[in-house]
Amino acid sequence: MAEHSDVLLAEPEKMNNGWHGLFGNGNPIHIEVGTGMGQFIIGMALANPDVNYIGIEHFDNVIVSALEKVIDAGKPSNLRLFRANGMDLVDIFSEGEIDRVYLNFSDPWPKTRHVKRRLTHETFLKLYEAVLIPGGEIHFKTDNRLLFEYSLVSISSYGMKLRDVSLDLHAAMPKDNIMTEYEEKFSAKGQPIYRLESQFNNL
Amino acid sequence: MAEHSDVLLAEPEKMNNGWHGLFGNGNPIHIEVGTGMGQFIIGMALANPDVNYIGIEHFDNVIVSALEKVIDAGKPSNLRLFRANGMDLVDIFSEGEIDRVYLNFSDPWPKTRHVKRRLTHETFLKLYEAVLIPGGEIHFKTDNRLLFEYSLVSISSYGMKLRDVSLDLHAAMPKDNIMTEYEEKFSAKGQPIYRLESQFNNL
Repeated sequence: MAEHSDVLLAEPEKMNNGWHGLFGNGNPIHIEVGTGMGQFIIGMALANPDVNYIGIEHFDNVIVSALEKVIDAGKPSNLRLFRANGMDLVDIFSEGEIDRVYLNFSDPWPKTRHVKRRLTHETFLKLYEAVLIPGGEIHFKTDNRLLFEYSLVSISSYGMKLRDVSLDLHAAMPKDNIMTEYEEKFSAKGQPIYRLESQFNNL
Repeated sequence: MAEHSDVLLAEPEKMNNGWHGLFGNGNPIHIEVGTGMGQFIIGMALANPDVNYIGIEHFDNVIVSALEKVIDAGKPSNLRLFRANGMDLVDIFSEGEIDRVYLNFSDPWPKTRHVKRRLTHETFLKLYEAVLIPGGEIHFKTDNRLLFEYSLVSISSYGMKLRDVSLDLHAAMPKDNIMTEYEEKFSAKGQPIYRLESQFNNL
């Protein structure tokens, strides 16, 4: 993996407000928390060369799969990966360094005692807010109804505004929708995909 | 209809802050805007004797059907009906006189040029806010996906908080759910029923 340290960063916590410098431009930076095997973030990076993307994944074996796909895609210059937990975000990014957070098919953590692990729990919203620009956005999609219901309430309770909601994304598939691996599988089964865009109310 | 003017009020705009007096108690008052044939509001009135209910319906022929059902139900003392448009609410109720607004299976007005007619449009949210107590609630259910998506965004943009959301009400049917006529029909077909509870952020 060390030979691909230009893509898969080993020590992201040492960037010290240097992410725009790393990309060598001032383009907006969008991160995906829980990037899985990388299909979404790679697709986004290829489709939007004027945006910088960072895929963040907790699991070593999963991020290796993502790395392989990034290499297959020719290592887009606007894409990086690193391994970290969501809780580490504030140690890795500076205030206002990030423009948008993507959450895709996050672990639903269905048990009530695990509610704090859901990536749309208030604890995580605070972390995203800390690293996002004022008025920064969270774009979230999932097939999990209970997680989506929970997230609408959690995001709203936090004081964020919903800007767009779809309760069946594939019923009127937007042309620019990049599918994740899970999304392909679940939507092929006819399950609705839920999606929201929300904005922090701190402009 | 005149003989049932104790239930179907002829001149609601002349109540002049007298709704609690009409019911003869200080119990909370919940209104349903667009009460249709009345099954929901009658069921609620029978199930919750400590709440006063008012069903409001625009169409004459529809409210006659509702009246007949109220008579069949023995004219619950905590239930009244009247014919009016949503826009008339502020002429009929005083500030803070109402505790909760119910919207059930409201006309979706799918065309963009009719968006202002949707009962969750900002125009109507302002009217509800004007007659509700501080922190008053709107409870809304529908089978119409596009209207529900629109309503989540509209309610959120207004600064209201979502307190509860269900994207398939009948998947885990709450015991206290009173069904409307439409709800029985649509849910029998297996269509999901969407529901939200939201609160004005003016406490």
